[in-house]
Amino acid sequence: MEKTSTDTLPLTMISSEKQETVCIFGTGDFGRSLGLKMLQCGYSIVFGSRNPGMSSLLPSGAEVLNYSEAAQKSDIIILTVHREHYDFLTHLTEVLNGKILVDVSNNLKINQYPESNAEYLAQLLPGAHVVKAFNTISAWALQSGALDASRQVFVCGNDRKAKQRVMDIVRTLGLTPLDKGSLMAAKEIENYPLQLFPMWKFPFRLSAVLCVFFFFYSVIRDVIYPYVYERKDNTFRLAISIPNHIFPNTALTLLALVYLPGVLAAILQLYRGTKYRRFPDWLDHWMLCRKQLGLVALGFAFLHVLYTLVIPIRYYVRWRMNNRTVVQAIAKKENPFIISTAWLSDSYLALGILGFFLFVLLGITSLPSVSNMVNWREFRFVQSKLGYLTLILCTAHTLVYGGRRFLDPSTLKWCLPSAYVIALIIPCTLLVVKFILILPCIDKPLTRIRQGWERNPKFLESALNGKTDL
Amino acid sequence: MEKTSTDTLPLTMISSEKQETVCIFGTGDFGRSLGLKMLQCGYSIVFGSRNPGMSSLLPSGAEVLNYSEAAQKSDIIILTVHREHYDFLTHLTEVLNGKILVDVSNNLKINQYPESNAEYLAQLLPGAHVVKAFNTISAWALQSGALDASRQVFVCGNDRKAKQRVMDIVRTLGLTPLDKGSLMAAKEIENYPLQLFPMWKFPFRLSAVLCVFFFFYSVIRDVIYPYVYERKDNTFRLAISIPNHIFPNTALTLLALVYLPGVLAAILQLYRGTKYRRFPDWLDHWMLCRKQLGLVALGFAFLHVLYTLVIPIRYYVRWRMNNRTVVQAIAKKENPFIISTAWLSDSYLALGILGFFLFVLLGITSLPSVSNMVNWREFRFVQSKLGYLTLILCTAHTLVYGGRRFLDPSTLKWCLPSAYVIALIIPCTLLVVKFILILPCIDKPLTRIRQGWERNPKFLESALNGKTDL
Amino acid sequence: MEKTSTDTLPLTMISSEKQETVCIFGTGDFGRSLGLKMLQCGYSIVFGSRNPGMSSLLPSGAEVLNYSEAAQKSDIIILTVHREHYDFLTHLTEVLNGKILVDVSNNLKINQYPESNAEYLAQLLPGAHVVKAFNTISAWALQSGALDASRQVFVCGNDRKAKQRVMDIVRTLGLTPLDKGSLMAAKEIENYPLQLFPMWKFPFRLSAVLCVFFFFYSVIRDVIYPYVYERKDNTFRLAISIPNHIFPNTALTLLALVYLPGVLAAILQLYRGTKYRRFPDWLDHWMLCRKQLGLVALGFAFLHVLYTLVIPIRYYVRWRMNNRTVVQAIAKKENPFIISTAWLSDSYLALGILGFFLFVLLGITSLPSVSNMVNWREFRFVQSKLGYLTLILCTAHTLVYGGRRFLDPSTLKWCLPSAYVIALIIPCTLLVVKFILILPCIDKPLTRIRQGWERNPKFLESALNGKTDL
Repeated sequence: MEKTSTDTLPLTMISSEKQETVCIFGTGDFGRSLGLKMLQCGYSIVFGSRNPGMSSLLPSGAEVLNYSEAAQKSDIIILTVHREHYDFLTHLTEVLNGKILVDVSNNLKINQYPESNAEYLAQLLPGAHVVKAFNTISAWALQSGALDASRQVFVCGNDRKAKQRVMDIVRTLGLTPLDKGSLMAAKEIENYPLQLFPMWKFPFRLSAVLCVFFFFYSVIRDVIYPYVYERKDNTFRLAISIPNHIFPNTALTLLALVYLPGVLAAILQLYRGTKYRRFPDWLDHWMLCRKQLGLVALGFAFLHVLYTLVIPIRYYVRWRMNNRTVVQAIAKKENPFIISTAWLSDSYLALGILGFFLFVLLGITSLPSVSNMVNWREFRFVQSKLGYLTLILCTAHTLVYGGRRFLDPSTLKWCLPSAYVIALIIPCTLLVVKFILILPCIDKPLTRIRQGWERNPKFLESALNGKTDL
Repeated sequence: MEKTSTDTLPLTMISSEKQETVCIFGTGDFGRSLGLKMLQCGYSIVFGSRNPGMSSLLPSGAEVLNYSEAAQKSDIIILTVHREHYDFLTHLTEVLNGKILVDVSNNLKINQYPESNAEYLAQLLPGAHVVKAFNTISAWALQSGALDASRQVFVCGNDRKAKQRVMDIVRTLGLTPLDKGSLMAAKEIENYPLQLFPMWKFPFRLSAVLCVFFFFYSVIRDVIYPYVYERKDNTFRLAISIPNHIFPNTALTLLALVYLPGVLAAILQLYRGTKYRRFPDWLDHWMLCRKQLGLVALGFAFLHVLYTLVIPIRYYVRWRMNNRTVVQAIAKKENPFIISTAWLSDSYLALGILGFFLFVLLGITSLPSVSNMVNWREFRFVQSKLGYLTLILCTAHTLVYGGRRFLDPSTLKWCLPSAYVIALIIPCTLLVVKFILILPCIDKPLTRIRQGWERNPKFLESALNGKTDL
Repeated sequence: MEKTSTDTLPLTMISSEKQETVCIFGTGDFGRSLGLKMLQCGYSIVFGSRNPGMSSLLPSGAEVLNYSEAAQKSDIIILTVHREHYDFLTHLTEVLNGKILVDVSNNLKINQYPESNAEYLAQLLPGAHVVKAFNTISAWALQSGALDASRQVFVCGNDRKAKQRVMDIVRTLGLTPLDKGSLMAAKEIENYPLQLFPMWKFPFRLSAVLCVFFFFYSVIRDVIYPYVYERKDNTFRLAISIPNHIFPNTALTLLALVYLPGVLAAILQLYRGTKYRRFPDWLDHWMLCRKQLGLVALGFAFLHVLYTLVIPIRYYVRWRMNNRTVVQAIAKKENPFIISTAWLSDSYLALGILGFFLFVLLGITSLPSVSNMVNWREFRFVQSKLGYLTLILCTAHTLVYGGRRFLDPSTLKWCLPSAYVIALIIPCTLLVVKFILILPCIDKPLTRIRQGWERNPKFLESALNGKTDL
């Protein structure tokens, strides 16, 4: 679009006779893909190139000029050039003055340079309005239209008007702009596409530690112990039996760890008598990745279910049952039916199924499109009430599974109790503490603290002033 | 819309020299969180407070003034104060005149006051442009950025310009504004965050009733009857066997009830000979919660699958099979293989699996993000064609499960047939009626009615006038 | 923001005294529903009708005039009339001149007319600004608010200003506009609601072919062969055993076919020495429906899991195990426990479970709302790394399932190996080729080609010019 004096129509509503012209510096893959997409959406495109006569593969309908000429054609220039080559722009200071310069670049490593590419650009050309955008979109996605990964385009810049112009373009291309504020956010935006599941790191590491612990614990009890005492080769248990000890115990522990930070926060608030002091960083981080922790726990629970359901198909199980029956038949001995055992067996299965069912429900409601449909009251009802019910059911499932063998000395091997006894420690403690916290005598002051009341109002004025506000 | 003259810039594109200033009345949690978020998105914030000198905890960069001074700094004021304290605004009538006043308040109960807070505010200050917004967003979500629940911000107000301004702010904060019309919608918007799954109430109650019915029915047949006649203690069946009667029967009945209102509506339209008369309210409401009914049915089906798959792990089942084999071996009697039994057993399992598979597919396509990717033809194909196929498979699964025992007098206990016979009544009736409805001689007039034709055109003019229109 | 002088308002911000008036031509279902929705969102509506005095059922608050009068009331006219009746508009050429005319029509068949309805309209009325919109939204959805299918409204038109106006209306109604460019896109937009899963056609046909092949292959080996040689009636295997051969083999083959086009593309790029030549059309199409192929494969895998888990409940399996035990008991012969068999049995189950688990994870990340939350690096990590791991696990599962029987002559029937041997051909070949491709000596040139390097740079200038650009 040519420079508009202030006496014309609003910028987003170009008079129909003229299309908005956008200039793209650089004719690499990304520049070409973006140019093609913008042409399709009704923009007029001018490419700026070092050797305009030699550029090829450009989308038909686009003009190619040298940098300076191209820049004069539009007041918005999209820069699809590597940061290392930004120097050439210093020769164009004059023509770029007052124009909108869109930085789409990415780096190869997180925090590769002391300042973000966009901030570096803004230093090079103080007269231009630098806007960071489009760096999260891939050239291939633009070309194929298969925007399977994010449609979100993070936009930041110091000039609200320039930012608004760029966000209008983003919207016209069928993408979703998200304003991240001033150019100071550019560093974060540039790091974003280089991240690999940052919120999942802590849950993955934690579950890896738990898995390794339960693995060695089970190997000692189920493989090494029988080998030492009975010379029995139990190594085949490594394929199914031992994973089916690791997965449920890890899942239960992780599920308890989802609700532990909430309880710790409540205790801290009770102790401090105020909610207006920040939690320690580790607690903050823990609270922010509870959803990920819960989903990892759900993964382990799902594996546990599958590992359990294949039990009757296993050769080992079929052999053992066949063998026991044959031995009994030869001895002409029938088994009596013990009702209490039937009760225990059916109860732990039923508790496990119900717990897993609620767990799957929790997982479904954490899908972005589902959680986006519910209001806060509903979301908290599901995540808190249903979450605790899930934890209670899963803990009860494990307790009943233990049943009469629970802490029975005959199940100890080298003084080690079964793995599920270890896994029960955190959930049981948590549930007891939570139960104490919801006793009226403790719940009341806590609720008051959460509504803004303070025991030792250091921030008296705020307490006075803000207590009537939302 | 009239053509505007061309001598000013649009409101959303502020000249870059000055940031837009927004005033926030109230320094409670929500006001502070909103202020911080808006500062981050490039707004300039002025807090209005009773005691500006004593306010603390406010985000750095924000100014704090008394109400009157703060209001003069901006033409848009966000009011984060409880409704009970709105009176103080009457002293500011003059300074608030012509300004945009955003009401973000919520109540504690649904329909707590005769009029909505926003309408009450508009009555207090007739000169201000009141806009309702932001009441569905929590302070915690704004602070942490973890907008797991809805990103949708419902906006309503009588002044389109004021509403547009507020919607621009909402969009800039990365949220999604949704225009709900005039201030008359404020009541609904204020009730929204207080609701707890309103569309799920009817399905939950209905399934609770069905569960209770099938529970007592099964207890009478499977626990009380054997106790009375054989003094057998079957109580352990309460854990798995009886739930596994309740769940599939409830699921099948609910699934049929998903398709029943559609059939009733068709019969009603055929009877009335027009589609231009409203359905009774109960039918309307039933039709609107079909999706929820179906999802509840899927939940029960999922539980039924899990309860069925654990059967071979149950102590009771293992004991029974072991015992039978031992008895046979002692009697030296081999069982003959009955091919027809193998056919029946495998068929009902296969039908059940295929029905469950389609049911899960239906559930997945009802996820908001999936259903948003399909067009109407595809959506109706899945929900109607696949839906009926699911119902047919599940009904057939139950019929074949019954197999030869179906209505066999020996299965009657106190004249009560098995629970699945009861559960088959609605689906079988429905399928027969549906089959009649798709007979050409009935389908043809129905299709014509649905295209706007009327048998007794009371609304003759409309039929004449509109029949060529979409 | 400072107060703006009041002598103009931007186009989107109508002065509050006057509501924007929109005219709707046609009083059919769609026109009435749209009118009602727009009234609720604060627009003023005028219906244009042939017989304004005789129109009924119209939403209260709307005016009804004849076409010409109605058109004069607004500069935006929404045309809800079938294409066959567009002729009447020619009488209104003058009054429609310069106005925005929104075409919402759909046809009954794909490509029913040589040109799209919107283009036809633009030819009829060259002076009007024709915009195509709203054709993907159903009247019922507008009325009930249950927008379960797409909320996306595709918009196209040659006039940017007119398009922008229509997109503002779309947004105000709570829908999501998507700019598809000039009016040339109207044909595609009109065909869209008539499509039935176009991307799924190839995957469905392919899997149907595979299913039929594996069906007949299994029937020959498992039903016809035993009947011919042993006169055994194995037909009951058609219900579960044979589907449980068809499903896993189809799933494995389809999963391999998801990754085959990527490998073929890499070989083609290596052979051509450039990435700047288009792939053949069949390869392009294949690559674009990989996601659908993968999801169909996941469906078959899911069915395989269910069919496998019901094995121990089947009458046939229970009878066989019971019979074997009875025979053994009568013969007083105990089975020895073979550790290697236990290892094989447990390993193939464990590999299958882990493969299925990763497969489900892949499926979940392909949900639109989930894939929209991840960046490109994460998306490619999941779809490529995790995808190959899934393929390796599933192939290993099948290999170990074969175990010692693999290609054992005794398993050949009429020289036909078991079905899983056939299903292993493509995955094993693919994995070997992929392994060769990631050898450093081959991976290096491939990576350079993908970064833009060319072996025989026909497009030398582009290579020179673009290589420093993104």
